[in-house]
Amino acid sequence: MKSDTDTLSSNRVIAADFIVNAGWIATVDANDTVFQNASLAVKNGVILGVGPQAECAQRFQADKIIDMPDHLLCPGFINGHNHAAMNLLRGFADDLPLMTWLEQHIWPTESKYVDEEFAEDGVRLAIAEMLKSGTSCFTDMYFFPDITAKLAHQYGMRAQVAFPVLELETAWASGPEEYIDKGLQVIDDFKHSSFANVCFGPHSPYTVSRATLERVATLANELDANIHIHAHETRQEVSAFIEEHKIRPLELLNDIGLASPRLQCAHMVHASDSDIELLAATGTHVIHCVRSNLKLASGLFRMHNMLEAGVNVGLGTDGAASNNSLNMLSEMNISAIMAKAVAGKADAVTASQALRAATINGARAIGREDAIGSLEAGKQADFFAIDVNRVECLPMYEPVSHLVYTAQNSHITDVWTAGEKRVEDGQLLHMDTIALREKANQWRKTLSA
Amino acid sequence: MKSDTDTLSSNRVIAADFIVNAGWIATVDANDTVFQNASLAVKNGVILGVGPQAECAQRFQADKIIDMPDHLLCPGFINGHNHAAMNLLRGFADDLPLMTWLEQHIWPTESKYVDEEFAEDGVRLAIAEMLKSGTSCFTDMYFFPDITAKLAHQYGMRAQVAFPVLELETAWASGPEEYIDKGLQVIDDFKHSSFANVCFGPHSPYTVSRATLERVATLANELDANIHIHAHETRQEVSAFIEEHKIRPLELLNDIGLASPRLQCAHMVHASDSDIELLAATGTHVIHCVRSNLKLASGLFRMHNMLEAGVNVGLGTDGAASNNSLNMLSEMNISAIMAKAVAGKADAVTASQALRAATINGARAIGREDAIGSLEAGKQADFFAIDVNRVECLPMYEPVSHLVYTAQNSHITDVWTAGEKRVEDGQLLHMDTIALREKANQWRKTLSA
Repeated sequence: MKSDTDTLSSNRVIAADFIVNAGWIATVDANDTVFQNASLAVKNGVILGVGPQAECAQRFQADKIIDMPDHLLCPGFINGHNHAAMNLLRGFADDLPLMTWLEQHIWPTESKYVDEEFAEDGVRLAIAEMLKSGTSCFTDMYFFPDITAKLAHQYGMRAQVAFPVLELETAWASGPEEYIDKGLQVIDDFKHSSFANVCFGPHSPYTVSRATLERVATLANELDANIHIHAHETRQEVSAFIEEHKIRPLELLNDIGLASPRLQCAHMVHASDSDIELLAATGTHVIHCVRSNLKLASGLFRMHNMLEAGVNVGLGTDGAASNNSLNMLSEMNISAIMAKAVAGKADAVTASQALRAATINGARAIGREDAIGSLEAGKQADFFAIDVNRVECLPMYEPVSHLVYTAQNSHITDVWTAGEKRVEDGQLLHMDTIALREKANQWRKTLSA
Repeated sequence: MKSDTDTLSSNRVIAADFIVNAGWIATVDANDTVFQNASLAVKNGVILGVGPQAECAQRFQADKIIDMPDHLLCPGFINGHNHAAMNLLRGFADDLPLMTWLEQHIWPTESKYVDEEFAEDGVRLAIAEMLKSGTSCFTDMYFFPDITAKLAHQYGMRAQVAFPVLELETAWASGPEEYIDKGLQVIDDFKHSSFANVCFGPHSPYTVSRATLERVATLANELDANIHIHAHETRQEVSAFIEEHKIRPLELLNDIGLASPRLQCAHMVHASDSDIELLAATGTHVIHCVRSNLKLASGLFRMHNMLEAGVNVGLGTDGAASNNSLNMLSEMNISAIMAKAVAGKADAVTASQALRAATINGARAIGREDAIGSLEAGKQADFFAIDVNRVECLPMYEPVSHLVYTAQNSHITDVWTAGEKRVEDGQLLHMDTIALREKANQWRKTLSA
């Protein structure tokens, strides 16, 4: 922990909307600076400054001072891969082989029940779960992206909403042309939202044709839009692709100009050394979904090798149907300890690296590292406070280690996005919890029938 | 979920001390019976009966009825491997290679600071953490086992306290003879305790001589006492042992008559097929410590193979210095999803199997499956209630799957051991939380100095 006065360079006293005085602040800046007895000043939803309390007291003033001496402040988590509406299918069919799970349970249920109402109720439930657990931004890929974007905007949650592109007909669109046409409309509808950001979500190289992927590449290039795709999730999917196309899936994405800093590949469990080199060389981002990959027995991700090669790795939960939760604290914990075991080195992927993966790396993956992902002057005030003085977690020697290896979800007490409090003392401020419960239980009855 | 009337065979109405009516009860009996709208009747700390509410209402009566329609009742977790006093070293030195961690941080700190006061404060803190998270029984292996046994007895927590046996001098004893002499005294001191059960804890085949292990085998045999040992934790430890002794560590334990249903091997990460066969053939128990093994990069445990071979596998947290928590819900979750990935099968190690590992298998490992580990008539009333209707975890399709893959620690609201409530609404009833916090923070200052 060190003092950093870079953000406190001017001498003028600035009026803030509010100042939080916290026991600790993990900034996740370029130096992983952690301040003790520190302040965060916010105005108009933006961070004015972060630093030691004594210095901030000279630089900022506010009528509203929030004292949290037992808390650590941290940038809001960025969940890099989700299918939010699938919260309604959480635990719907567990402990089954992957293809049985998909073909006999998930797909038939989706084709029978997924509609606007399903999307609306599922996404709302997912937003509730994510906000309560400190997630301030998520990437989604599911049908009815317009509903996801609308709800993200409504509840003040940041979202990169990847509209689906598939070859086959679903409740949302009939084929690739309609998926893309409707998706372009959603991009347009939300172009002025500060919360929802819409992008292309072609499902995967093995489910979307080369022609469609080429069209996506052209359009995304014209619009300077991101592309979010599943890639290299299972061994079988990669080997079948190679057999059919005589090229690795990532190489195909590169051949058609998709591999770039605008592309995020979710999963990448089965990445060869050459895949890792190609990811690093092209600046393609990877979203690691450790709990989903383990639970579906997809394989063991080589996070250590990815980071060493310079690949930007963010973390994602995947949907609650495979996870079975949207708990970024747990993703961060398991990704770090798994990476050590896979690398065979207890110092591989440190607590700080895991925290970066859950925050700033996720921001970089969606091209928003200028605005979110760390607590620095000028960035959006998206952050949470976690009580690090709970008896079941003491003593605490180092706050980031505590956060990654020891802390529990319920210790996250307060969550802000754009400087507005969304969760207070563990309770959602702007969502009707009773109604959410009722909806979830109704859907359970319907889907179990 | 099915109805089970085996436990309700008589017609006499029996007076209970109290009856809990719960939404669900996971009995963890031989058939993994889960009752919906069920009751648990308790008298004198013992379970009188478990079954559907309507049937129990005819069989039992009590003045005190506890209604928990949103809760699932579950047998208390059995933490099969811990070094409770090391709670004071939680997060003391993370992200370091194993030998650096041990040789430069843990061992020097232990040799400087571990005394009666350290043990007392550390164990009390660990008991608080374990009780709050639904653990009703733990195995401990650390210096000052008399203090651990005393505190377990005092707070009504069941413990198998393995007194350490080492060759080298520590604060507790000068060498193997004194360790054993003092340990035998502790066995004697607690022979009438219904909570603390003392047994032999030779550290490991690679740190304890063959002669000492033989003496332990003889004495444990005479006393019909259990033996708890670390074995096959790291690849390097196993290969170095083979090089020196021309025999695998487990084979040595078998040669001197230790491998039996009275032996528990903690870790067993590096188990060959022949090791697994030997474990199964001798009825030797294994305690799997998944989070510790991952975090210290010890390796990937083959839980699926162990269970298939018929080995009894319980779960343990290991000490908080390597874990960094004593959270059995998380152990259960990670052990299940890890096992799937290691086996390459999404149906390997189901939620029910993981719950068995965290409860009845742990009871069997310490020879107490007649008394604890499941909710059945005649067993001790050691159980917890978990709220399964929290908005962040809905919907719930199957309660055991919910418990293993979705539930959070803080949803465990009430915990009983021997029919007495130890935790109510998330708060410890018989422990001074403020004093515990102060002690933990004092030790942090001392140990960081």
